[in-house]
Amino acid sequence: MTIEPTLEALPALSTTLPPVARHAAVPRGFVVGGTTCGIKASGRADLAIVAVTGAPAAAAAVFTRNAFAAAPVKLSRAHLAATAGLARGVVSTSGSANAATGAAGDADQLEVARALASVLASPVEQVLTMSTGIIGTRLPLDKIRTGITALATDLSDAPDALYAAAQALRTTDSRPKLATTTVALPGTDGSTNEVTVSGIAKGVGMIHPGMATMLSIVLTDAAVDPGTLRELLRGATVRTWNQLSIDGDTSTNDTVIALASGATSAPPVRAGSPAATALGAAIEAVARDIARQQAADGEGATTLITCQVTGAADDAEARAVARSVISSSLVKAAVHGRDPNWGRIAGAAGNAVLADAHVLEAAGFDPELAALRSGSPATVDPDRLRVAIAGHLVFDGSGGGPAPFDRAAARAAMDAPEVLIRLDLGLGDGAGEAFGCDLTEQYVIENSEYTT
Amino acid sequence: MTIEPTLEALPALSTTLPPVARHAAVPRGFVVGGTTCGIKASGRADLAIVAVTGAPAAAAAVFTRNAFAAAPVKLSRAHLAATAGLARGVVSTSGSANAATGAAGDADQLEVARALASVLASPVEQVLTMSTGIIGTRLPLDKIRTGITALATDLSDAPDALYAAAQALRTTDSRPKLATTTVALPGTDGSTNEVTVSGIAKGVGMIHPGMATMLSIVLTDAAVDPGTLRELLRGATVRTWNQLSIDGDTSTNDTVIALASGATSAPPVRAGSPAATALGAAIEAVARDIARQQAADGEGATTLITCQVTGAADDAEARAVARSVISSSLVKAAVHGRDPNWGRIAGAAGNAVLADAHVLEAAGFDPELAALRSGSPATVDPDRLRVAIAGHLVFDGSGGGPAPFDRAAARAAMDAPEVLIRLDLGLGDGAGEAFGCDLTEQYVIENSEYTT
Repeated sequence: MTIEPTLEALPALSTTLPPVARHAAVPRGFVVGGTTCGIKASGRADLAIVAVTGAPAAAAAVFTRNAFAAAPVKLSRAHLAATAGLARGVVSTSGSANAATGAAGDADQLEVARALASVLASPVEQVLTMSTGIIGTRLPLDKIRTGITALATDLSDAPDALYAAAQALRTTDSRPKLATTTVALPGTDGSTNEVTVSGIAKGVGMIHPGMATMLSIVLTDAAVDPGTLRELLRGATVRTWNQLSIDGDTSTNDTVIALASGATSAPPVRAGSPAATALGAAIEAVARDIARQQAADGEGATTLITCQVTGAADDAEARAVARSVISSSLVKAAVHGRDPNWGRIAGAAGNAVLADAHVLEAAGFDPELAALRSGSPATVDPDRLRVAIAGHLVFDGSGGGPAPFDRAAARAAMDAPEVLIRLDLGLGDGAGEAFGCDLTEQYVIENSEYTT
Repeated sequence: MTIEPTLEALPALSTTLPPVARHAAVPRGFVVGGTTCGIKASGRADLAIVAVTGAPAAAAAVFTRNAFAAAPVKLSRAHLAATAGLARGVVSTSGSANAATGAAGDADQLEVARALASVLASPVEQVLTMSTGIIGTRLPLDKIRTGITALATDLSDAPDALYAAAQALRTTDSRPKLATTTVALPGTDGSTNEVTVSGIAKGVGMIHPGMATMLSIVLTDAAVDPGTLRELLRGATVRTWNQLSIDGDTSTNDTVIALASGATSAPPVRAGSPAATALGAAIEAVARDIARQQAADGEGATTLITCQVTGAADDAEARAVARSVISSSLVKAAVHGRDPNWGRIAGAAGNAVLADAHVLEAAGFDPELAALRSGSPATVDPDRLRVAIAGHLVFDGSGGGPAPFDRAAARAAMDAPEVLIRLDLGLGDGAGEAFGCDLTEQYVIENSEYTT
């Protein structure tokens, strides 16, 4: 018996995001670089710098909500508050997280910021920091200071320099993560001006919604005020990095920093304008692509799992269901085994709960409603749900439940670097997606043999 | 250098629960049995019955909150509502979950209840059902009817009969799960009357808070009204089964049913009385011990992980932190590797969020406060946190962070069937615990090679 794949029966997730390329492109107004300064015993690159060439850039950031925020997170939060969103530079170190290091760690981190501020002739408050690596170890300050001084003379706007910075962000990543897009911003006089948005990032363990990013730096030459940039970054994060889960854990150091140099000739982007919408879409496109790279490169992973949900009561519910599916250990193990196990997917969907209040707020809910809805179950009606795996409709609640499908063909279709799981809830117009990876023996081996 | 273990520095989690034995004891007023009726291809036991010998027992239950509640869950919910908490019998089948089987599955489940009602000469509404097994397959009704008729002639109050019933609940469990305790209930005239509380249960995959139980039946000969029994069961569940996580997934079939026969000569237990407190502690003791058996027998697990939290702002926050620690894939993998990785434990603690509103309600919060607090981050202060692993103090926030400890000795102490992780938050009097297991290569193998 041949059974046709019936994925077409499910509505597509519509997107208005611009296309993204995975190469290095430095937006105007920045110089960057990456090098080895000796934090990592392996001798791999471990220091990255971004510097603004003109007036201070508008700066915004999203940080881990873990109560154990590391020293670089605390410093960047304080500096952004002090400057109301202005920055001249970012310094990132990898190999040591500078987390759980107490007051001495905070003092170390300030020294790192001072070293970059000195070579940039910038107020220290206009320097932001990020770091990842082993928790509980102190930063080797002398090595970092020497590295910053040397790298500062070598910063450049060449693609190779951004690639080197991406390399220096890595810890257990198997490859560097870069994405770039260009977008034409509508001007006030009907003209358009092309701006660039580029991102670099690291993954790949201890990643989960709220806040699911590890480290990323997003640069643009658009001209935009810090408040608008912050709203655009938060909105993009809600739909991308907050929908990414590798293993259910959030780290102490997760940070995304966005800088806008304003080096374009385009007029400033105003909140709520068509230009803001276009710039927000460009930031989201870069964030989404990087999130997918991070999921695909999850520790031990062999397969990127994308879950797209349509027909939800609203977008927040769709995202909750998608997140629950890609976070399920049983679904992740089933994908690893190429098992079209709709029961585990339906079970995970039925178990979805809405995000934390701060995520719902960033998605547009008023604070009171966000507090009330956070942690509530998502609405899923078994009699309306439809599920498709890798192009095969496997469950149709409106048709009585399990759908007849060609199991061998479905298994073969799942034998790919990416498996797409689609759910239509049949309830409303809400849509969303989430990104994860399969659960493998290698994940367990990596994380049980790693020693503190 | 020898460093003394400093676990003594952490306050102990106090308990007032009575001791529990892991053997079969049938409380007065019940007969039970288990047998093979042919649902499982393996020929293993797959049918269990509990029958009340006298007047209908007071009945209460806690069910999965998964939107995909299976047919046996829907039937038991409806029957409990129809009778306001009275039952003459429970029938449990394993091998087929009767989940996602639509209206036909609901009709099948009613036939199962009718078969037991018939042999017990009971109204069908006084029969409750539970089942586990493969999702999406129909029950083999003829085999089950024949099995019920045969087993009904063989029910007994002998320990072997309860052991056989526990055997028949099993799916992937490596061993049956039983626990029993006796407790002296204070009477109105100063006398005491001993009653028994016994439980049987199955684990061991797809287990997570909200509702974290799989199947369990708790029996007592105490006399108690259904409403009080329900409150005692919910309170015990909040502190035991809802604090159990094997792999972060909840199933479609999770059910705990408690029956109180009233066959004791003790006077009825009134809500809020000292007798109710004593009976609640006995139910909680049995539930806690079974939850620990389920965690220890988690799929692929080699090690029971218990996390005890003291010094929290309140008990709900302590339970949230404990749950977050034992749910962390990174902590679970670290325990598997005998790595005293306090960084992952602190990270998981910093990432804790409060339980769903219904769990907070069951714990005593008023509904409005429960809705507001559900999903909120738990309060953890890195500067006050202390962490001990297997008897070794490894982190002391008040002392600057990582504590000096004998790593080799800590690793050796972790090489045991149970690893105890203790956290003192240094904030208040709240305390709680949670139960989980290590994450192993075998878990991935079992769950990626299992085919729907």
